[in-house]
Amino acid sequence: MEKKERYNVAVVGATGAVGQKIIETLEKRDFPVGELRLLASARSAGQQVTFKGQTYTVQEAVPEAFEGIDFALFSAGGSVSEKLAPAAVERGAVVIDNTNAFRMLPEVPLVVPEVNPHKISEHRGIIANPNCSTIQMVVALKPLYDAYGIERIIVSTYQAVSGSGQAAIDELKEQTWKILNNEPIEPKVLPVKSLPRHHQIAFNAIPQIDVFEENGFSREEMKMINETRKILGDDKIQITTTCVRIPVFYGHSESVYIETEKSFDMEEARSLLASAPGVVVVDDLKEQEYPMAISAEGRFETFVGRIRRDLFHPRGLNMWVVSDNVLKGAAWNAVQIAEYMVKTR
Amino acid sequence: MEKKERYNVAVVGATGAVGQKIIETLEKRDFPVGELRLLASARSAGQQVTFKGQTYTVQEAVPEAFEGIDFALFSAGGSVSEKLAPAAVERGAVVIDNTNAFRMLPEVPLVVPEVNPHKISEHRGIIANPNCSTIQMVVALKPLYDAYGIERIIVSTYQAVSGSGQAAIDELKEQTWKILNNEPIEPKVLPVKSLPRHHQIAFNAIPQIDVFEENGFSREEMKMINETRKILGDDKIQITTTCVRIPVFYGHSESVYIETEKSFDMEEARSLLASAPGVVVVDDLKEQEYPMAISAEGRFETFVGRIRRDLFHPRGLNMWVVSDNVLKGAAWNAVQIAEYMVKTR
Repeated sequence: MEKKERYNVAVVGATGAVGQKIIETLEKRDFPVGELRLLASARSAGQQVTFKGQTYTVQEAVPEAFEGIDFALFSAGGSVSEKLAPAAVERGAVVIDNTNAFRMLPEVPLVVPEVNPHKISEHRGIIANPNCSTIQMVVALKPLYDAYGIERIIVSTYQAVSGSGQAAIDELKEQTWKILNNEPIEPKVLPVKSLPRHHQIAFNAIPQIDVFEENGFSREEMKMINETRKILGDDKIQITTTCVRIPVFYGHSESVYIETEKSFDMEEARSLLASAPGVVVVDDLKEQEYPMAISAEGRFETFVGRIRRDLFHPRGLNMWVVSDNVLKGAAWNAVQIAEYMVKTR
Repeated sequence: MEKKERYNVAVVGATGAVGQKIIETLEKRDFPVGELRLLASARSAGQQVTFKGQTYTVQEAVPEAFEGIDFALFSAGGSVSEKLAPAAVERGAVVIDNTNAFRMLPEVPLVVPEVNPHKISEHRGIIANPNCSTIQMVVALKPLYDAYGIERIIVSTYQAVSGSGQAAIDELKEQTWKILNNEPIEPKVLPVKSLPRHHQIAFNAIPQIDVFEENGFSREEMKMINETRKILGDDKIQITTTCVRIPVFYGHSESVYIETEKSFDMEEARSLLASAPGVVVVDDLKEQEYPMAISAEGRFETFVGRIRRDLFHPRGLNMWVVSDNVLKGAAWNAVQIAEYMVKTR
């Protein structure tokens, strides 16, 4: 892509939870947008969306819609990306894809700008945005990985419903309301809309995110394992994941245990985290300060706290990692990749 | 204690969340209650409580109230137990104590009937009920420990607010209601009522249960570590804990990773769990069946699912353990100890 004053941007899935946040983030960051083309399925076409005080009409996402586009940011589901991303690339766009469609392809860079920005230049048209729960974890792991190496990771997640889109947000709100009013509820969205059974999320914890694989891990759990190894460029790291949905609207929390390769000094580890890009350490136990989902909502950073050495394993370290799953976990990471490309041109 | 037809029972903290469940459980299990004496602080004395259709007036808990009592079940906080349990023991009662007051004293048995019932007979008047999050974990660990040994445990909890008593239950309900109505909230109870700061629990996850120790772990996390080692009678087990409060009313969930000493066969491990006392395996991924807090509410058992071999460590196993924290985690475990003593007389 040549250097320009302004870049034409297409947002695919513009009416979805992540698409909306992409548009908000482009505005908030004052991204040098030339033409903005908001695209969605035929069903959502015709809806009105505001960007910088101007009203845009959402158009149907068809191959021709990518004519003249510089950046195409996709977040309309894997099948839409599979179908339309190649069409966008053919027309000269760089695709930044939020879905699972291309992440593990060897020729597609899987990028978190704080962690592996050097991979961006290797793209052949498509750059993949990792899964939300992976992104925030690798942002927190990166400074420790660079300093000490990481042998293994054992992580349990506490994930917000917004990771399943607007329908899941609406379901949590409505279901909670009904339960407090002693009305009957009928779960329809979570844990996985397309599967036959649905479970109550209000006042509950559901140990299923995405479908299950044959090995007993869910696809979300496998994404965290495979993507973390790809992003850190290290397939020796042993990773165990348990992914759980809890009744939170925005902000994933993660209980992360790691074992480093080399021994570490606790104060040094803490200060490496504090100075790492994209990381904010919130860790003052006397003041009862630690990262929480409600504090991370609306923020771009990854918050790290409860940092402590394991009591038994000399190279074991625990931390609590929280970030806004639709911002750093999706919209902001995608815009951040585009910003990086614009700035390094 | 001599064998009797019926036993005089005192419930200390009879008006609290756990005390109420103890009374319900005594009724549900048809425990051979002779006289029932319901005790509480002077502030709660005079309240009326129903047991088997009969109304009882709550009396003030004073040393003389234990005259003629066989079993005294305490759940009114550590300071009440410290003050009154010795008075009950002096008067010939067996104290089953739900608080943290005596758990780690070497001469006090810390008992989960499915795990170490043989310790009951060693008591010198006081038997301690472990912490709720410990109890359900050791019930699930016991069959695996016996068969394979356990080298290490890494657990992250998803704990219900009822663990902090009725005030926390009320706070979650009221706070949720206000947030849905866009009214301002003022947290007053969670995470720890007596500490200066309080945080929103509705639609949030709070990584603090009880106060923090100097080592960076919370007291709840230290309880899980120390009590598990005492109950299993094995101080070689390495344990890492992260305890988190989530917006659930009843039922603690736990993401438990273990490494066994000997290698295990996955199907055998699963069948050992399925036949273990107090354990119900709920683990059918095709049918999307796994333990959940809302399904465990009101049940005495510990539910185990998401049982799977680690993908990297040959002796690593993950599971998801759920139980009703005020029943198996408190009231039922206490009554169960009394039942065991009555039956084995």
